[in-house]
Amino acid sequence: MSISADPSAGQAVKAADRAHVFHSWSAQGLIDPLAVAGAEGSYFWDYDGRKYLDFSSQLVNTNIGHQHPAVVAAIQQQAAKLCTFAPAFALDVRSEAARLIAELTPGDLDKVFFTNGGAEANENAVRMARLHTGRQKVLSTYRSYHGATANAIALTGDPRRWPNETGTSGVVHFWGPYPYRTNFHADSEAQECERALAHLEQVIAFEGPQTVAAVILETVVGTAGILVPPAGYLAGVREICDRYGIVFILDEVMAGFGRTGEWFAADHWGVVPDLLTFAKGVNSGYVPLGGVAISERIAATFAERPYPGGLTYSGHPLACASAVATINAMREERIVENAREIGERVLGPGLRELAERHPSVGEVRGMGVFWALELVRDRATREPLVPYNAAGAANQPMAELAAACKQRGLWPFVNMNRLHVVPPCNVSEAEAKEGLAILDEALTAADAHTA
Amino acid sequence: MSISADPSAGQAVKAADRAHVFHSWSAQGLIDPLAVAGAEGSYFWDYDGRKYLDFSSQLVNTNIGHQHPAVVAAIQQQAAKLCTFAPAFALDVRSEAARLIAELTPGDLDKVFFTNGGAEANENAVRMARLHTGRQKVLSTYRSYHGATANAIALTGDPRRWPNETGTSGVVHFWGPYPYRTNFHADSEAQECERALAHLEQVIAFEGPQTVAAVILETVVGTAGILVPPAGYLAGVREICDRYGIVFILDEVMAGFGRTGEWFAADHWGVVPDLLTFAKGVNSGYVPLGGVAISERIAATFAERPYPGGLTYSGHPLACASAVATINAMREERIVENAREIGERVLGPGLRELAERHPSVGEVRGMGVFWALELVRDRATREPLVPYNAAGAANQPMAELAAACKQRGLWPFVNMNRLHVVPPCNVSEAEAKEGLAILDEALTAADAHTA
Ligand SMILES: Cc1ncc(COP(=O)(O)O)c(C=O)c1O
Ligand SMILES: Cc1ncc(COP(=O)(O)O)c(C=O)c1O
Repeated sequence: MSISADPSAGQAVKAADRAHVFHSWSAQGLIDPLAVAGAEGSYFWDYDGRKYLDFSSQLVNTNIGHQHPAVVAAIQQQAAKLCTFAPAFALDVRSEAARLIAELTPGDLDKVFFTNGGAEANENAVRMARLHTGRQKVLSTYRSYHGATANAIALTGDPRRWPNETGTSGVVHFWGPYPYRTNFHADSEAQECERALAHLEQVIAFEGPQTVAAVILETVVGTAGILVPPAGYLAGVREICDRYGIVFILDEVMAGFGRTGEWFAADHWGVVPDLLTFAKGVNSGYVPLGGVAISERIAATFAERPYPGGLTYSGHPLACASAVATINAMREERIVENAREIGERVLGPGLRELAERHPSVGEVRGMGVFWALELVRDRATREPLVPYNAAGAANQPMAELAAACKQRGLWPFVNMNRLHVVPPCNVSEAEAKEGLAILDEALTAADAHTA
Repeated sequence: MSISADPSAGQAVKAADRAHVFHSWSAQGLIDPLAVAGAEGSYFWDYDGRKYLDFSSQLVNTNIGHQHPAVVAAIQQQAAKLCTFAPAFALDVRSEAARLIAELTPGDLDKVFFTNGGAEANENAVRMARLHTGRQKVLSTYRSYHGATANAIALTGDPRRWPNETGTSGVVHFWGPYPYRTNFHADSEAQECERALAHLEQVIAFEGPQTVAAVILETVVGTAGILVPPAGYLAGVREICDRYGIVFILDEVMAGFGRTGEWFAADHWGVVPDLLTFAKGVNSGYVPLGGVAISERIAATFAERPYPGGLTYSGHPLACASAVATINAMREERIVENAREIGERVLGPGLRELAERHPSVGEVRGMGVFWALELVRDRATREPLVPYNAAGAANQPMAELAAACKQRGLWPFVNMNRLHVVPPCNVSEAEAKEGLAILDEALTAADAHTA
């Protein structure tokens, strides 16, 4: 890492950004984007020479960190060979990416439809499920994020859905398990699981099973809280779907490709969905890529009947080349194993230790390099540190916590009353410990708001 | 170009493709994808050493041809520097891409929201229009393609929409101008224009102007027929939108970035939309990229109010770097001017000459490197060579024409009863003439089906 300061270059970058770049999820006049000069591994730096430990993996996508040399080289080589080619053709690198993904995904998910990202992956999974079943409704949970195109945002169960709702989406939201804030008045994980399954089955019964095309879940819910499903929940949903001929879709856009310490989060519970959507970690986002891994049964539906979906860049050569290199590097460098070990040996114990010292930490949960600290005003009442969907002054405690992290050189991922600890899957033990030490200091900013 | 045959490698690529790649818009069991080994400029080649003149520009996206060295180098350099970074930050290459695009787009379209492709661009344009106006309905034409995510496919006016319709999309379809097959019983272009505008205004009146958020048009309709709007049509739509406070969206995903012989097709008529969507030609698809260019007025709506849309890879560094290099190369090499000149001097006259010799050609229309031959059984009745949305045996004449092109080394773009002539914008005069000569031979296959 050769970091040198060049503040005036940074100001020019920022001025052009403010003049011409329209930013997502933001009020354009109220943002002040940090100008970034470079990145390597678990770090990035700005034009003032300030370095940040990237404990957000950007948007939880750089599972192999920044600028992995093998992936950079693969992109450069593929660029020299063939940058772009239409989806209708067969290409070496497209075939190889699909073969590798089919090899890694569980069960008979052996065919891959490529997209540019996670939203398009979910759009296509829902399309497949509707056409496969001839039914319209799709069930998803209130605590979820599935992307921002029309169907994907309709599936989403967070406030980003509200300004986007139009007409009839065909989506019905239900409650998933969440022991810490149970919707089912449960007092154990086992009871939460049992009641959550009964709730889902009742929603299906009252919606009419013959109208329900699919149930879609994030295997481990990501942005909406790193909610690890209780033992038995996913197997129970699988069973319910089978009983009613409903397609079971697992969204592994954030949870997949090593994040939880397995290739796919579903592997922790040995559950095989009918469709599995992915993006982010498949190539750490080095080139936009997402997709749907498809079971034999659903692929067969489109053997003689045309599949009515597509996009110009399905199976983009540069994106496929970066996926092949990423998967190979993750295997060779045992990056998935590293994520698991760092979770078990460093982050899990380290975060639980922080919880003991910091009254603002209500719960620590997660696995691999996929952790949340759920912050509260009061551990007894579990009152969230900030209200649901807080903004401005109401969100001040979380804004202070984020600022405290950044001041100390750690870039955090915060959402509502939670701080997510989501470094790259190949984060080193030393880096993980460096991050924990910073969090230990920064959390005093949150503690100041406790009862 | 060093083309060498390696049929067994091609067979392996194809076998892995058939085993694992799920293809767009296809019955998976009925396709036989060509395995492609390489590409350069206006050509690509397969593993048997067969070379094809790419008169489709893939999916009408390689406006600068295959493997342009300046763009390849820019991708390689950016890959070495910074492959991926989250949308919330300011980055040199993201700022520069936005600045260049703002400079090229007409009027006050000075802010750019980046996406991965055209469908997501239209999804976001519609979102902006709905939130800006507080209205729900969006009007689009029956002859159009706007992408395959939920809102984009609802906008689309071709049969690909049918299997995807669910619930209420809020989209209302109307008829655009199409002098050759007028929906308005018009007998001149001027009359077609006048009646098409009256029709649009009447649809708005009966839908209720205060319910209509946007009118979206492809400036020159692409896949649905290369329909060049009559003089006055776009200005008329602009006027109608202004009258009722309706957002005017131009989809320049296919028509933009040089295809029509101007940077944007709207430049031919001096019309400025409120939102302009782009993808494809912005970087010739070397890295997935699309976006929305946004007027000051609409950007202002989101100055203090958060814009509720986003995607992980908005403003992707590698994609932005390829756009910067593409735009600079197009300027330096006068590629837009080349498209115009090839259209005026070679393709236009050449195609009209073919029409004289081939009774199957009902109409020649287009501009720049964006042309259609509309094929008919009978010039007098204008009966299409194949029926609307024909498949299998009913589509035989068009299948034969496509095969005749491929046998002679030209890769065509065919849609329904049309052959589109859409080579790269930097196609040379010699290549354009080579293509015309092949079409001259291949069209006899279509002539055989005339009355
Ligand atoms: C679980 C999940 N699904 C889907 C998406 C949408 O992916 P994209 O932003 O690439 O469209 C995200 C993005 O954060 C996600 O976390
Ligand atoms: C006019 C137009 N709009 C939108 C799209 C959709 O773009 P994409 O395939 O990148 O989603 C296309 C693709 O062909 C198009 O031609």
